[in-house]
Amino acid sequence: MSLNRFAYLGPEATFTEAALLSFLDSRNLRAEATTHPMRNAPSALDAVLEGDCDAAVVPIENSLEGGVPATIDALTENGRLQIIAEVVVPVRFVLAVKPGTTREEISSFGSHPHGEAQVRAFMNENFPEAVYLPTSSTAAAARDLANDAGDHMAAACPALAAQRYGLEIVAEDIGDRKDAVTRFVVVTRPGPLPAPTGADKTTIVAALRSDRAGSLLELLEQFSSRGINMSRIESRPTGDGLGLYQFSIDLLGHIHEARMAEALQGVHRAALKLHFLGSYPSSDGAVVPIDPTTTDESFAAAADWLERTLEG
Amino acid sequence: MSLNRFAYLGPEATFTEAALLSFLDSRNLRAEATTHPMRNAPSALDAVLEGDCDAAVVPIENSLEGGVPATIDALTENGRLQIIAEVVVPVRFVLAVKPGTTREEISSFGSHPHGEAQVRAFMNENFPEAVYLPTSSTAAAARDLANDAGDHMAAACPALAAQRYGLEIVAEDIGDRKDAVTRFVVVTRPGPLPAPTGADKTTIVAALRSDRAGSLLELLEQFSSRGINMSRIESRPTGDGLGLYQFSIDLLGHIHEARMAEALQGVHRAALKLHFLGSYPSSDGAVVPIDPTTTDESFAAAADWLERTLEG
Amino acid sequence: MSLNRFAYLGPEATFTEAALLSFLDSRNLRAEATTHPMRNAPSALDAVLEGDCDAAVVPIENSLEGGVPATIDALTENGRLQIIAEVVVPVRFVLAVKPGTTREEISSFGSHPHGEAQVRAFMNENFPEAVYLPTSSTAAAARDLANDAGDHMAAACPALAAQRYGLEIVAEDIGDRKDAVTRFVVVTRPGPLPAPTGADKTTIVAALRSDRAGSLLELLEQFSSRGINMSRIESRPTGDGLGLYQFSIDLLGHIHEARMAEALQGVHRAALKLHFLGSYPSSDGAVVPIDPTTTDESFAAAADWLERTLEG
Amino acid sequence: MSLNRFAYLGPEATFTEAALLSFLDSRNLRAEATTHPMRNAPSALDAVLEGDCDAAVVPIENSLEGGVPATIDALTENGRLQIIAEVVVPVRFVLAVKPGTTREEISSFGSHPHGEAQVRAFMNENFPEAVYLPTSSTAAAARDLANDAGDHMAAACPALAAQRYGLEIVAEDIGDRKDAVTRFVVVTRPGPLPAPTGADKTTIVAALRSDRAGSLLELLEQFSSRGINMSRIESRPTGDGLGLYQFSIDLLGHIHEARMAEALQGVHRAALKLHFLGSYPSSDGAVVPIDPTTTDESFAAAADWLERTLEG
Repeated sequence: MSLNRFAYLGPEATFTEAALLSFLDSRNLRAEATTHPMRNAPSALDAVLEGDCDAAVVPIENSLEGGVPATIDALTENGRLQIIAEVVVPVRFVLAVKPGTTREEISSFGSHPHGEAQVRAFMNENFPEAVYLPTSSTAAAARDLANDAGDHMAAACPALAAQRYGLEIVAEDIGDRKDAVTRFVVVTRPGPLPAPTGADKTTIVAALRSDRAGSLLELLEQFSSRGINMSRIESRPTGDGLGLYQFSIDLLGHIHEARMAEALQGVHRAALKLHFLGSYPSSDGAVVPIDPTTTDESFAAAADWLERTLEG
Repeated sequence: MSLNRFAYLGPEATFTEAALLSFLDSRNLRAEATTHPMRNAPSALDAVLEGDCDAAVVPIENSLEGGVPATIDALTENGRLQIIAEVVVPVRFVLAVKPGTTREEISSFGSHPHGEAQVRAFMNENFPEAVYLPTSSTAAAARDLANDAGDHMAAACPALAAQRYGLEIVAEDIGDRKDAVTRFVVVTRPGPLPAPTGADKTTIVAALRSDRAGSLLELLEQFSSRGINMSRIESRPTGDGLGLYQFSIDLLGHIHEARMAEALQGVHRAALKLHFLGSYPSSDGAVVPIDPTTTDESFAAAADWLERTLEG
Repeated sequence: MSLNRFAYLGPEATFTEAALLSFLDSRNLRAEATTHPMRNAPSALDAVLEGDCDAAVVPIENSLEGGVPATIDALTENGRLQIIAEVVVPVRFVLAVKPGTTREEISSFGSHPHGEAQVRAFMNENFPEAVYLPTSSTAAAARDLANDAGDHMAAACPALAAQRYGLEIVAEDIGDRKDAVTRFVVVTRPGPLPAPTGADKTTIVAALRSDRAGSLLELLEQFSSRGINMSRIESRPTGDGLGLYQFSIDLLGHIHEARMAEALQGVHRAALKLHFLGSYPSSDGAVVPIDPTTTDESFAAAADWLERTLEG
Repeated sequence: MSLNRFAYLGPEATFTEAALLSFLDSRNLRAEATTHPMRNAPSALDAVLEGDCDAAVVPIENSLEGGVPATIDALTENGRLQIIAEVVVPVRFVLAVKPGTTREEISSFGSHPHGEAQVRAFMNENFPEAVYLPTSSTAAAARDLANDAGDHMAAACPALAAQRYGLEIVAEDIGDRKDAVTRFVVVTRPGPLPAPTGADKTTIVAALRSDRAGSLLELLEQFSSRGINMSRIESRPTGDGLGLYQFSIDLLGHIHEARMAEALQGVHRAALKLHFLGSYPSSDGAVVPIDPTTTDESFAAAADWLERTLEG
């Protein structure tokens, strides 16, 4: 499957585009790729589903805000899309101005309200007089500043936006939480799975059969009994009533591994509904430790034993 | 503790005010109570915390959208507030007009985008020509219509809003999901707990010690091993990095019951952090079934046995 | 495999021979079968292993005394024998005399010490003057009485022994525990497994990897997580030190069922050692209930799902 | 409670007396103690129960043979006895003769059949011509040899027996399994429990409520959920039918520890029947590791939290 046309959650020059560019560079695809900002995550996924694009990049999880419901729900409802990669991007803001603006001239600044919340401490300390003016995205603050389309004298925006719109950076990394990151996924139509690397994640959505505590416990035991760890779990309502959930879960391992294949079959039996959204290399490349009793070799030895036993 | 001054998530005449009025009626408090719409859930809770109000009513969970993160996070961060009751309100929209407007004149309608999403099928079928115009809340659609403050000719709003602003109801219960409900909680400063009724809920927030699958499993086993069921579980990031969660959980039972007291002590030992947010009567009055091995009598008999055994 | 020559734990006319005859009748094998009493259970099993007999009948479990270690250990050590059937025999004693002996003449009685323990209450009440004289087996009490080989005037023995040696029964079912039963297994060399009947048992021996509590728990979870129940569990030392065990376990179900096959593979991975001793019809014919999530159909559907998912 | 009169499983000079003497030495009680060999374990326990003796020493577990059912059942049935100490004794045999007997004269040897089984390899290799003659105990082989009461020319017996009866040791430690040990318990009437030492064991017998696999699992989870490990588990039939068990269990820890107290109360609720047989120092003095979430401090902090929470 050739990957040329990329949809992403727009507008341009946000952290999502930064994630997309990071992905393109990591695969040496930047030269031939075209990129297409979309209005929201469902639209970006629809563009892939309908064949207008080959892949979409959308945020799935933020270390401060939690899961991104729009992405999780859209992936679940579509059901026929596949995650082939993840990209984790640090959420770092810069304070940028039009070239030539002096610090003293910064009497106001623009950003998306989420962005403003993260740079508030910095601005209060360093530019206590600067008035905040909301913009529709952090990138829009930079674009409008460049185009003289707003009243703000500075933008709290991603470095990519400052660079894209020819602004000058006054201060770097001005967010309160230096370790804040957002995780994005690269989504395609179904196709061959990325090969296992030993450092993989598997993403599923599973709906419980009942609202009893034991039901979630039973689901989790499918993983723990095969030594499989989770790196994310998000509850989402099924829409069928209070207390009825489905869970969006990231697991460490690849569906080509025997322990994962058996666990997912166990979930298929126990759950009301199971969506497999992909097995793909984890962005940090951390090799997943495997207990000796759940290696592929251990599963193969058990299968051999069973075969010999059944032969008598 | 006298309950006179009630803060709630405003504006007026939304489903939150409907929940508040329902609560006041159930306690015969409507005559003497004053009600105070607040800008957002944290503000409503702050009003209680600072003593400006005696209680706040805020939405915590919607059967279509899931948990309300702003409420859950605000309750968790405050840590010193207590849920004393829950109210479940059906999410039913009416189509309302100024008295005298004919059906043929409904060329446009106003609502909050969330409201519009839920009445879209009805409007498409019955008023295919009516243009949608967004308003800042479902109640605002009614208010602006009454005040001639908008361009819309009808409002998709709660019955309470239609009534409050003197509108005429054209159609009732026009939402797509007839069973949609929102659950609200009534929150006060800490004080004596509501007495157990046999049909109670307990709300907690617990942060896991690690991001391992076993960690959530261990938490849930504190409940399942004492026969305690959950009616809600929501994951929320701790803000300290991807994959680190705390869970907002509703349990069936009251902290004055021995099995709940022991389970919560177990969570206190196993979890990184535990916030108790209250034990209160469940709105549906459904008596919680208790396994014979986890009744208060069974706990008392075991404690007697231990005492006799230690005496030798 | 033709079954003609049967070894059994001797001597003749004990409950073990009764079990053997019951098995032969149930299979219409009595006409052509030869039966061979052996000195002890290991000898009976050896006769099969070495080809001198086709099958052996040995006691495995008694409702009063518990498991029969000699049988369990011999089956485990052999490792290459297979249980093809079980027979449960009520442990009922009669009081028998030489024809013509009157009740008044019963001044003494013989039995194996185990037998005497079970008829003590009856004898004390009905023959308080009768002195107990030990014999090497309950059947020997009858045989010696018939042959005038002992000093006892009556025998507390199985009905089979009274009949075999031409004695007259004075009183029936004289044991204290009317519901006492012994369970026997019919053992052959490895061969085709008995076909599943829906009412089957599977017998295994599994040695734990460590002496930690969690180790036994992990073993049992292999069964509980697939909805498999146990009907017997016996701990046996491995001989390698205090606290190191292997467990002899009867499970409800057949290895040809998917849930059992998967559970046993799980045990194979988790345990230090696993011996499969057979899947065979249970003597009571009680159909094993299966949870809808662990039927063969449910496993097949999950396997299909996996295959489709891997194809992309 | 003064400990002067000790019953033990006789006869004299067996490993049981060796265990008793080891216990007396460890407590500096040898001078004033009287020791009383009893016919069997139940008799030794009865002597304590009836006040004829202050304590009894009986074997409970052998590393080769497993649990000692007579002891376990007698302790369970009595229900009113208490284990205050354990003693582990190596099972080491010597070959002993009357002084002056030469190796060439050893044409036969006596021992209990269990003893013979353990020295068979040694005797076959070193005295291939020596005929085995059974005796009623390993000590009796020595006593009879000294008294010229048997036909054997040597005894395979405990060193204690050789010494007691003035024999000469020809070869030491002649058993096949050099690591074989037997564990004995010292039992008294109920009284104050031995104080916790940090290296303690607790012995219980618990009968399950049903024969379902989940029932044993539930029992074990009472321990695993509080981080408590087992060092022994033995299944014993309840006598009420095949498949109905009670379990004799040794746990690491003391009932004065909060985690053990809570776990035992949990067992009391979940089990059909619970006998507490004692908390006592383990003979190896190995300090029991405790997870930070189950220390007494952790339990106390949770109890404090609960109290503060209930106060509001």
